[in-house]
Amino acid sequence: MSRIPVGILGATGAVGQRFISLLVDHPWFVITDLLASERSAGKLYGEAVTWILDTPLPEHIAEMSVKLVKPGQAEARVLFSALPAEQALEVEPAFAAAGHFLFSNASAYRMAEDVPLVITEVNPEHLELVRVQQQRRGWEGFIVCNANCTATHLVGALHPLQLAFGLDKVFVATFQAASGAGYPGVPSLDLIDNIVPHNYGEEQKVETEPLKIMGTYANGSIKPAEFVISAHCHRAPVVDGHFEAVSVGLQREATLDDVIEAFQSYRRLPQELGLPSAPDPAVVVVKGVNRPQPRLDRMTGRGMATVVGRIRPCNLLDWRFALLGHNTIRGAAGGSVLNAEFMVHQGYIPS
Amino acid sequence: MSRIPVGILGATGAVGQRFISLLVDHPWFVITDLLASERSAGKLYGEAVTWILDTPLPEHIAEMSVKLVKPGQAEARVLFSALPAEQALEVEPAFAAAGHFLFSNASAYRMAEDVPLVITEVNPEHLELVRVQQQRRGWEGFIVCNANCTATHLVGALHPLQLAFGLDKVFVATFQAASGAGYPGVPSLDLIDNIVPHNYGEEQKVETEPLKIMGTYANGSIKPAEFVISAHCHRAPVVDGHFEAVSVGLQREATLDDVIEAFQSYRRLPQELGLPSAPDPAVVVVKGVNRPQPRLDRMTGRGMATVVGRIRPCNLLDWRFALLGHNTIRGAAGGSVLNAEFMVHQGYIPS
Amino acid sequence: MSRIPVGILGATGAVGQRFISLLVDHPWFVITDLLASERSAGKLYGEAVTWILDTPLPEHIAEMSVKLVKPGQAEARVLFSALPAEQALEVEPAFAAAGHFLFSNASAYRMAEDVPLVITEVNPEHLELVRVQQQRRGWEGFIVCNANCTATHLVGALHPLQLAFGLDKVFVATFQAASGAGYPGVPSLDLIDNIVPHNYGEEQKVETEPLKIMGTYANGSIKPAEFVISAHCHRAPVVDGHFEAVSVGLQREATLDDVIEAFQSYRRLPQELGLPSAPDPAVVVVKGVNRPQPRLDRMTGRGMATVVGRIRPCNLLDWRFALLGHNTIRGAAGGSVLNAEFMVHQGYIPS
Amino acid sequence: MSRIPVGILGATGAVGQRFISLLVDHPWFVITDLLASERSAGKLYGEAVTWILDTPLPEHIAEMSVKLVKPGQAEARVLFSALPAEQALEVEPAFAAAGHFLFSNASAYRMAEDVPLVITEVNPEHLELVRVQQQRRGWEGFIVCNANCTATHLVGALHPLQLAFGLDKVFVATFQAASGAGYPGVPSLDLIDNIVPHNYGEEQKVETEPLKIMGTYANGSIKPAEFVISAHCHRAPVVDGHFEAVSVGLQREATLDDVIEAFQSYRRLPQELGLPSAPDPAVVVVKGVNRPQPRLDRMTGRGMATVVGRIRPCNLLDWRFALLGHNTIRGAAGGSVLNAEFMVHQGYIPS
Repeated sequence: MSRIPVGILGATGAVGQRFISLLVDHPWFVITDLLASERSAGKLYGEAVTWILDTPLPEHIAEMSVKLVKPGQAEARVLFSALPAEQALEVEPAFAAAGHFLFSNASAYRMAEDVPLVITEVNPEHLELVRVQQQRRGWEGFIVCNANCTATHLVGALHPLQLAFGLDKVFVATFQAASGAGYPGVPSLDLIDNIVPHNYGEEQKVETEPLKIMGTYANGSIKPAEFVISAHCHRAPVVDGHFEAVSVGLQREATLDDVIEAFQSYRRLPQELGLPSAPDPAVVVVKGVNRPQPRLDRMTGRGMATVVGRIRPCNLLDWRFALLGHNTIRGAAGGSVLNAEFMVHQGYIPS
Repeated sequence: MSRIPVGILGATGAVGQRFISLLVDHPWFVITDLLASERSAGKLYGEAVTWILDTPLPEHIAEMSVKLVKPGQAEARVLFSALPAEQALEVEPAFAAAGHFLFSNASAYRMAEDVPLVITEVNPEHLELVRVQQQRRGWEGFIVCNANCTATHLVGALHPLQLAFGLDKVFVATFQAASGAGYPGVPSLDLIDNIVPHNYGEEQKVETEPLKIMGTYANGSIKPAEFVISAHCHRAPVVDGHFEAVSVGLQREATLDDVIEAFQSYRRLPQELGLPSAPDPAVVVVKGVNRPQPRLDRMTGRGMATVVGRIRPCNLLDWRFALLGHNTIRGAAGGSVLNAEFMVHQGYIPS
Repeated sequence: MSRIPVGILGATGAVGQRFISLLVDHPWFVITDLLASERSAGKLYGEAVTWILDTPLPEHIAEMSVKLVKPGQAEARVLFSALPAEQALEVEPAFAAAGHFLFSNASAYRMAEDVPLVITEVNPEHLELVRVQQQRRGWEGFIVCNANCTATHLVGALHPLQLAFGLDKVFVATFQAASGAGYPGVPSLDLIDNIVPHNYGEEQKVETEPLKIMGTYANGSIKPAEFVISAHCHRAPVVDGHFEAVSVGLQREATLDDVIEAFQSYRRLPQELGLPSAPDPAVVVVKGVNRPQPRLDRMTGRGMATVVGRIRPCNLLDWRFALLGHNTIRGAAGGSVLNAEFMVHQGYIPS
Repeated sequence: MSRIPVGILGATGAVGQRFISLLVDHPWFVITDLLASERSAGKLYGEAVTWILDTPLPEHIAEMSVKLVKPGQAEARVLFSALPAEQALEVEPAFAAAGHFLFSNASAYRMAEDVPLVITEVNPEHLELVRVQQQRRGWEGFIVCNANCTATHLVGALHPLQLAFGLDKVFVATFQAASGAGYPGVPSLDLIDNIVPHNYGEEQKVETEPLKIMGTYANGSIKPAEFVISAHCHRAPVVDGHFEAVSVGLQREATLDDVIEAFQSYRRLPQELGLPSAPDPAVVVVKGVNRPQPRLDRMTGRGMATVVGRIRPCNLLDWRFALLGHNTIRGAAGGSVLNAEFMVHQGYIPS
């Protein structure tokens, strides 16, 4: 097949840049549209952007003109949105109404009843919800969301346990990377010789998004999963890679070997279909009391895997472990790209 | 009274330096002996030490001769020990047998049945255990331990809650400062753009020491407290100041105001007696969703207080909050100094 | 004398906070006015500010109302300005015209012909220029500037050498702390695992301000010093404390002992008069090939001294050394406070 | 040709790991021997090493047995040495005497009269010196050194200027990455909120090695280049990537365009021959006042290029600029690998 044209909304920001880096050599997609706010529109991308990735800005991307984020500007039907939540709230429906297929990293519509919040390995069947969405809203296009970066990797590790043993209770304390706040984002004075507690909105996302994602879809609606999550969220002096310390209470008993086996045997549709961005394995178990670590483990599976380690009994619940995942790859842009790949494969998107 | 001579075992290390900084202008004590291992013994302190504190090394201390760590070398009867655990295991009893009063930051004897593990505000009555210790071991001196740095501040925040409501369950995830590992300690490659999980031994200390400290003393022995702690411990790129995210289950119901009141009204013997190193208040409640923070809050109460913030309901247990405390002041050297002040005041030590 | 009322322009920013911390317990001054932009005006200071210092915000300051930065709002005649350059350009003359004595940390008027740019130890005689300024501009008040933070400490180390040997050429490469850019200032993504070159405007300040400061005042004007400076400026992941690597070519030959002696014997009017904020000594020579260091040495002389070390011959010029100084204390707020103390002492300001 | 067997001396250290990562998929070489000190010898590599790179340890390498560093242990004739200087002093000649071809990153023999110190682009003709070395010492093997990491990239930027304009004077101030000190290396307490001046030995290397490398080879000996370098060296909180601020005085006049052209047209034997590890271009000129930066630019040319930016006139010499290069790739292991590739190509090493 010839490559499918795609555009990026909010292309100059931190997540927008990550979308570019993941899509620029993509076997199925070709970047045709870069859209951003008035400050950047009309400029060459190379002039508009403060490129913060450690891979070089591709030259042909640098020479593309940035268009204004509004419907009618984008030629591509498939759009990846890296817009801030407030802007997404207004702009994304306009694009969907205009027939675009939106894969959004914004939080604006994640919890909307008729918007699928999808981690491709976990709940691809929720994507069927776009039919309800289209019907109810009268759209030809649709909005599909990926989850909050911290919630994504938490679910990445919890889902194998849910499948194998059922989940009851989850404690999680996070150490989140600076890139999660974009650029300029967190002031350096906050993260030199320091740790900064996150706002409670982040904790709420981590406590609610997983329940929707791990919920069941039937008759056009999603019934959230029923376990309980308590999240303590913090920002740490790390460029990329969210670290999470987790304790879990399970519904059925499990030995250490059972838990390890649940992680290691976890293999889902994206892996079976061999989608271009699918990590295989999706969950990697590392050895060593001092692993995972952000700097050493974040690029596992090209940044698309969730890394789990330090699995040991918990004094209060059943098991505890640490997990780590790349926040702007799997936790943001990469999550949406994998969703898009799956929907292309399933025929939701004409290729 | 004239000032009481004191010595420091392991004087050149990170905690040894902190002992010096806390004792050099102390109103009750005067430093007469600096003891260290063979590598340093015989040298001037200023030549033997790599001074890592941001306050200058006092000149008269720099010109003191370092003696070898063995009994007979120290003139002072009161000794503060900053020895590594393995060395303390062997050396501290020898000093106690020789009649010295040891206030030890080492972990070697913290959990020994007849050694009091004391946070002065929490369990000063446990100090009575030194009589048992002296009798059983035939010592004229004694060993009194302060707790692990992380455990110290955890107990600092838990004790007001235990007194007011009873404790049932505690979940804690820590972000510990580099200085807790001494110098050279943690390699910089581990803490630039990174977080490193701690070894499980640290977690075990945090899970067991508080139960001894908050236990009850009767008939010459300590009955540990019966609540359960689950600890996840990690090292963060911070110089000083341990941050802990805590969820607690209480025995009796408490409103947010009750919890705040419990912290704010916490005032104990060291505060009432006005001991020189006692912080007043011992627990400080800070406002703001993003507080406490290590860099901004660690010096609260000259590094002797425990700072609490972000008090909010927990989805799984009753309440959650964040706490912060200085790990080498209150969490190490300062804890021992306050214990010594109390024992002087109570007449255990002739002044 | 009763304490002289003073106000702070730009009181909520990083340097404004430092002014507060230096003035709150000042023996000669009392803070009566806190002025800031429209965003903060009308609020209590404690609500308007994001306090970033590691000493607590004094409660009575927190409860002061913030006034709008415009003449007529401030009761105090003496004002310390921590305004951004663009705002200072417009606002400071208005205050001076209204009779206020401005001690400004802003760069706006530093190089103006009739504005003294003063480091109190170096060129207090330049302060006489305020008479020219008042006459020419028809002001009852005046503007006195302190220098750029990096230039301040460079001059702090160069002036003893200029006095003793004459200066010819100066190379300097800087590693500047994040606090120099204020708050939020430098994004954390720029300073985790990274170094960022500074803009050329900073280099120009470092190359020109010292020549004015070390110039000669005669007949109402300043003749700049004639040596040449080449500056390479960079931002480093440090909270406070500018580090500078310096090579100097002298006009007269000097041995290592001569150079050390020049630094150590440097004692000037602020030291002789015992002004409250004067460090004594003003220049501190540290030993050790690996000193000075920002974290260990920045608080030398309560942040008002310049620390010099690593004095050794240069292959190209005569001598090279490293220097370090606190950028927001001596390099900003503290420099202005010392200037004000001197002018009070000299009778420029009625007390 | 079939791949040439190679071994690594000091295989478990930071540079040893980098050698492995560069050689594991090398088109011309195959790793057959991993040698290390007694502590590691006899273990599987995966058990002996604390792997600190962010790319995974290849499994077949993890399962190789580590041999003791002494002649007779290595099957491969070509050896890469990542030994510490003291150990290299003794061990490397023994291997060379036993017929091995040593490509050494150690400083032990860099300045020895009959040992070529080579940056492949700069002075490949110096390799002829191995014939003198073999004859004089009676060896069948030889030792070839690559330069100090900081000197390597300094020369990388200076050589184009030397060729085009001649060099007279060089001032350089460095900000060197933590990985340059190996693992555990620099304590984290030295590099959190801090900068640490380097020891003078490092500065001496940076001032002398370039003169040997850029010297002329004739009649079996090297005449050093005659320009003068003054180096100020410092350690910064960066994982990888040395940053250097440079001022240069040239022998012949050059405009900005001339200087840029000199860098951009620099193309040497490794580029012309298309050697597997040769970066092309070898020198990359980046735009932007705030570039180069370690985190963003160190992987340019897969870590083998030298990145130059901020080219501007110098007040004292002719031009100044900033440069950046990867210290453990081009500045250590990669430099030796490229030398080996060239010697294979030239027939020094039978393939």
